[in-house]
Amino acid sequence: MVIDCHGHYTTAPKELQVFRDAQIAGLKDSSTPAPGPVKVTDDQLRESVQPQLKFQNDRGTDVTIFSPRASAMAHHIGDARTSLDWSRQCNDLIHRVCELFPQNFVGVCQLPQTPSDPLANCIAELERCVNDFGFIGCNLNPDPSGGKWTAPPLIDRYWYPFYEKLVELDVPAMVHVSASCNPNFHATGAHYINADTTAFMQFLTADLFKDFPTLRMIIPHGGGAVPYHWGRYRGLAQDMKRPLLADLIRHNVFFDTCVYHQAGIDLLLKIIPADNILFGSEMVGAVRGIDPESGHYYDDTKRYIDAAAISDRDRQKILEGNARWVYPRINDRIPMPTAEGTLR
Amino acid sequence: MVIDCHGHYTTAPKELQVFRDAQIAGLKDSSTPAPGPVKVTDDQLRESVQPQLKFQNDRGTDVTIFSPRASAMAHHIGDARTSLDWSRQCNDLIHRVCELFPQNFVGVCQLPQTPSDPLANCIAELERCVNDFGFIGCNLNPDPSGGKWTAPPLIDRYWYPFYEKLVELDVPAMVHVSASCNPNFHATGAHYINADTTAFMQFLTADLFKDFPTLRMIIPHGGGAVPYHWGRYRGLAQDMKRPLLADLIRHNVFFDTCVYHQAGIDLLLKIIPADNILFGSEMVGAVRGIDPESGHYYDDTKRYIDAAAISDRDRQKILEGNARWVYPRINDRIPMPTAEGTLR
Repeated sequence: MVIDCHGHYTTAPKELQVFRDAQIAGLKDSSTPAPGPVKVTDDQLRESVQPQLKFQNDRGTDVTIFSPRASAMAHHIGDARTSLDWSRQCNDLIHRVCELFPQNFVGVCQLPQTPSDPLANCIAELERCVNDFGFIGCNLNPDPSGGKWTAPPLIDRYWYPFYEKLVELDVPAMVHVSASCNPNFHATGAHYINADTTAFMQFLTADLFKDFPTLRMIIPHGGGAVPYHWGRYRGLAQDMKRPLLADLIRHNVFFDTCVYHQAGIDLLLKIIPADNILFGSEMVGAVRGIDPESGHYYDDTKRYIDAAAISDRDRQKILEGNARWVYPRINDRIPMPTAEGTLR
Repeated sequence: MVIDCHGHYTTAPKELQVFRDAQIAGLKDSSTPAPGPVKVTDDQLRESVQPQLKFQNDRGTDVTIFSPRASAMAHHIGDARTSLDWSRQCNDLIHRVCELFPQNFVGVCQLPQTPSDPLANCIAELERCVNDFGFIGCNLNPDPSGGKWTAPPLIDRYWYPFYEKLVELDVPAMVHVSASCNPNFHATGAHYINADTTAFMQFLTADLFKDFPTLRMIIPHGGGAVPYHWGRYRGLAQDMKRPLLADLIRHNVFFDTCVYHQAGIDLLLKIIPADNILFGSEMVGAVRGIDPESGHYYDDTKRYIDAAAISDRDRQKILEGNARWVYPRINDRIPMPTAEGTLR
């Protein structure tokens, strides 16, 4: 079985965007009525995820850990109420898709973050999604300001109440920023990758995982720049008298495989321990074209894993076993087809 | 001959920091007298660069393209006057070191940038350093705010007057940020690498090099995350109907080799055209330790180049030829030992 840990609902029915547009219009003109809940039929939802289902079939993957469109979270827009209403609508649709295709999608929630706001709403929404909907994780935005980077670093105690809830519920967080409102940062080409690199370096400098030994964070997009600069990070950790990186990340920090060429994936697999890599494709996502050099979609990352010179055991961990270990609640929704599934 | 395009004067005599401390104290208390020029003897300067000379000798490199300590530029401190005074002191010392060891060091200047200020001071200081001192390039900070990223992107016309001067003087710029005053960004572990990635993506999105066909930019630290995510960038360029990346960077964008492990260097050399790679070590710089896995300094990047499976011709380009092409004024100061030197 192949579990893709990184899929976004980028193909949602247009009614979702209509809701969002009305919500944003209401921020500018308070006489605009608040938009009602998004009304879409099950047939619309079924239709909307046909691209994902087709890619799963074509690429030989089985289950997608599925979350709202990351670039649309836009936590910098409006206030806490805006973010809460928007997050709930997005998460409700994910829940419905997961109920319609329980073998194909398992939910991960957007959080109603707002710059500088306490995280009470995020805790409540996480509980709702995990306890009521059976979601298995969340996307945590380290920069809810959208490119201004005004929030405290992820190692700051500001985040600790939320981490306590993650630990209690035994669900991980993917560290994932949203749109950039800073013209310096292209969203998918700079802001996403920078955030991944930034988060890793924050984790390197502090004892967050001593305080939360079972907290698990997935750094998407292959860990940003980190595997490419692994020598730099090993050297910085050494200069700073920090633990060996392999020890620092062992049970707590994981990289997905959203790296869109063979040489990049080969580096990732060579440098990062196999236990810390989760298969992901980000589809349908940041890059949608076909690579003329290979004749295949850039984001068909399973092909790169298949072609990589790794052991079958490591391949199984990366494609399935590690996801089951990092997101244990998936086992309630997608039972293991073989006893091999939990090997890690 | 081996030219290291990326060395900083991180070992300057303490008198330089005394000047800076007095300058910063004066910002807080206007009754503090303005510090006089840094007074150091030639012997102090000679002594201060012994570490660099020893590393050159031990590692088999010949010339370092030498600039003031990047993390100390700190363009966010004070105002335009502060930045100008500080930059001049730093550049004066670089000039003196280059005069004392003309076979070992060639100068690159710090620029007196200030957030949101026009670039007139930068143009004047560049002219002083190139015309009066024989410097061959500069370090351009894309984020003079120090981690707040408030300046316009590098493709914005705000920067064009400065680019016109670069073109006129036929000198390149290394895109290099300084210290971070944003607690999210560790300077050498996140801010530096993020800036490299950010700058590349900015270049990808616009026609800057159509406006300035001979403008040359070096993106340090191996290009940030870019080579590792080359498939992502090729795909984004394709989705955005931009040129092929190899064409986009050909005469204008160059990556150094400040990547501190063999696997990272191997990826860089495999992915980026040899014409667009310049040998660099960043020494004495960001990472100072010895890698226990190799028994050698992390930043002894020449070892990785020596061990890489590339042709002798490509190795010569990377170690010398490309630097002579990108920084042509170096040829006036360090004549080519062989006719091969200009091959590119």
